[in-house]
Amino acid sequence: MSLLVVGSVALDTVETPFGSVKEALGGSAVYISTAASYFTTPIRLVGVVGGDFSEEHIKFMESRQIDLDGLQIIQDGKTFRWGGRYQYDLNVRDTLFTELNVFKKFDPIIPVGFKSSTYVCLGNIDPVLQLQVLNQIKKPRLVVGDTMNYWIETKRDELMATMRSMNVIIVNDSEARLLTQEPNLIKAAKKIIGMGPHVIIIKKGEHGAMMVTEETIFSAPAYPLETIFDPTGAGDSFAGGFIGWLARTDDLSTENLKRAVIYGSSLASYCVEKFSVDCLRDLSNLKIQDRFHAFRDLSRFDEK
Amino acid sequence: MSLLVVGSVALDTVETPFGSVKEALGGSAVYISTAASYFTTPIRLVGVVGGDFSEEHIKFMESRQIDLDGLQIIQDGKTFRWGGRYQYDLNVRDTLFTELNVFKKFDPIIPVGFKSSTYVCLGNIDPVLQLQVLNQIKKPRLVVGDTMNYWIETKRDELMATMRSMNVIIVNDSEARLLTQEPNLIKAAKKIIGMGPHVIIIKKGEHGAMMVTEETIFSAPAYPLETIFDPTGAGDSFAGGFIGWLARTDDLSTENLKRAVIYGSSLASYCVEKFSVDCLRDLSNLKIQDRFHAFRDLSRFDEK
Repeated sequence: MSLLVVGSVALDTVETPFGSVKEALGGSAVYISTAASYFTTPIRLVGVVGGDFSEEHIKFMESRQIDLDGLQIIQDGKTFRWGGRYQYDLNVRDTLFTELNVFKKFDPIIPVGFKSSTYVCLGNIDPVLQLQVLNQIKKPRLVVGDTMNYWIETKRDELMATMRSMNVIIVNDSEARLLTQEPNLIKAAKKIIGMGPHVIIIKKGEHGAMMVTEETIFSAPAYPLETIFDPTGAGDSFAGGFIGWLARTDDLSTENLKRAVIYGSSLASYCVEKFSVDCLRDLSNLKIQDRFHAFRDLSRFDEK
Repeated sequence: MSLLVVGSVALDTVETPFGSVKEALGGSAVYISTAASYFTTPIRLVGVVGGDFSEEHIKFMESRQIDLDGLQIIQDGKTFRWGGRYQYDLNVRDTLFTELNVFKKFDPIIPVGFKSSTYVCLGNIDPVLQLQVLNQIKKPRLVVGDTMNYWIETKRDELMATMRSMNVIIVNDSEARLLTQEPNLIKAAKKIIGMGPHVIIIKKGEHGAMMVTEETIFSAPAYPLETIFDPTGAGDSFAGGFIGWLARTDDLSTENLKRAVIYGSSLASYCVEKFSVDCLRDLSNLKIQDRFHAFRDLSRFDEK
């Protein structure tokens, strides 16, 4: 199935207790597309970069069969840059700087050839732009959306309008609580179902992820990593693995959604093992299957 | 198998956003014994109360086939009292008062008939007393121990000495980090293995529990409760369900330890549905099995 990904393309400067990288390839659209490319190709990416965006990054994305027809290159502009520092326990992140640059005026124009995409993944961008994207798509079979605290706080009404067109929303636990003003995550998820999406995925970092639908609650463990080099992009890698598997199988049954959550978790667990998208550069089906099985073994018990 | 439980017997005054109780039956030994009594009987309890301890509580424990030969009753003393208040999200607890009373001079004397107990559960008491208990037991097959931040901070050396005689230690995530000065929970668990116990169980509240041994990591989800009335005793109910199942089956294989974690989680999930030990008063094998299966369904996925 055809998969469209819209989001940021960025150059990230990241410091963690284990090292640092400067202006490494990043952004939600990059992580989502790269992760999804292990399940289905080509991936249709829509985003914007400046004239300073390196040819090397273009080549890498093309090597992952990411179709860049929708990547706007503003020659006299600069690419979006983000800088962040993770504290010792990696659960707390300080943003050091955000230079929106060409991203400030991002106008997501969907190329004609992308308008019939059946699977759509909306990375974390302004909900107004997310809706603008959806208005250009003919008849999507599945829309997966991400958001963040900033939009929940500053553009709640617009986000609510966009959420009515999402089938799946992926948020983290604090975002779910902020969105619903409800501390209990199960209750929060059920409230979000009333806002539009019928599948709610709550990412809980080191505690795994949870999927809530009208009929089911599914709990996915976190992969027990002893060393997390760089948590940047884990959520987007999850989204990419999740929608990539669904686009590949075109099966939206509850059972297959569960598998998609585990594939998402698998990609996220690989993502954090190196800086930037480095760990997503050379995955293989075998490695992904290995981790999928490791997830199964992690929570499996015999009843006797 | 014979199961000995040593810990506090208390009268708890608890406030939560859903109501309050005054001087309700509580204490680690009570929760552990009551939970374990659904798996194996009689349970041998060692603890201390004052002359004010109600006959009604004695009768309840006897009705659960808890052998009270080791319950010291100090007629001219008062029972240990604890008061706490849970905040809105139930993750934060403020201790309002602690009146140790007869518990201050608790000298855990193990009755002769209890000294051959094969399964021993040490509730959260001074590690010096925990060791004193173990020195009176002939040849335990399994020692499960609990502790808390207070002992880690004030009696680290004594705790380390006691831990060398524990086979299983049950701690929560913040205790595991405090004990090891290691933010990563997997690394923390592995460090604890080096301190004595070969099975480490880390309770993560609303995120479930994790068991780490030399050979395996097992992740148990949390049961998705929409309303938690009173979190008091959840950890002790977990310990009781865990050791109760092991004492009943006398099987210490990794596979059976996983089942024990799920039985512990099941009892803990029932415990928090009402105030005090109320939800543990009238459980049944059927209800426990139902929840055990619900835990299985929560994390199960088909591979296709």
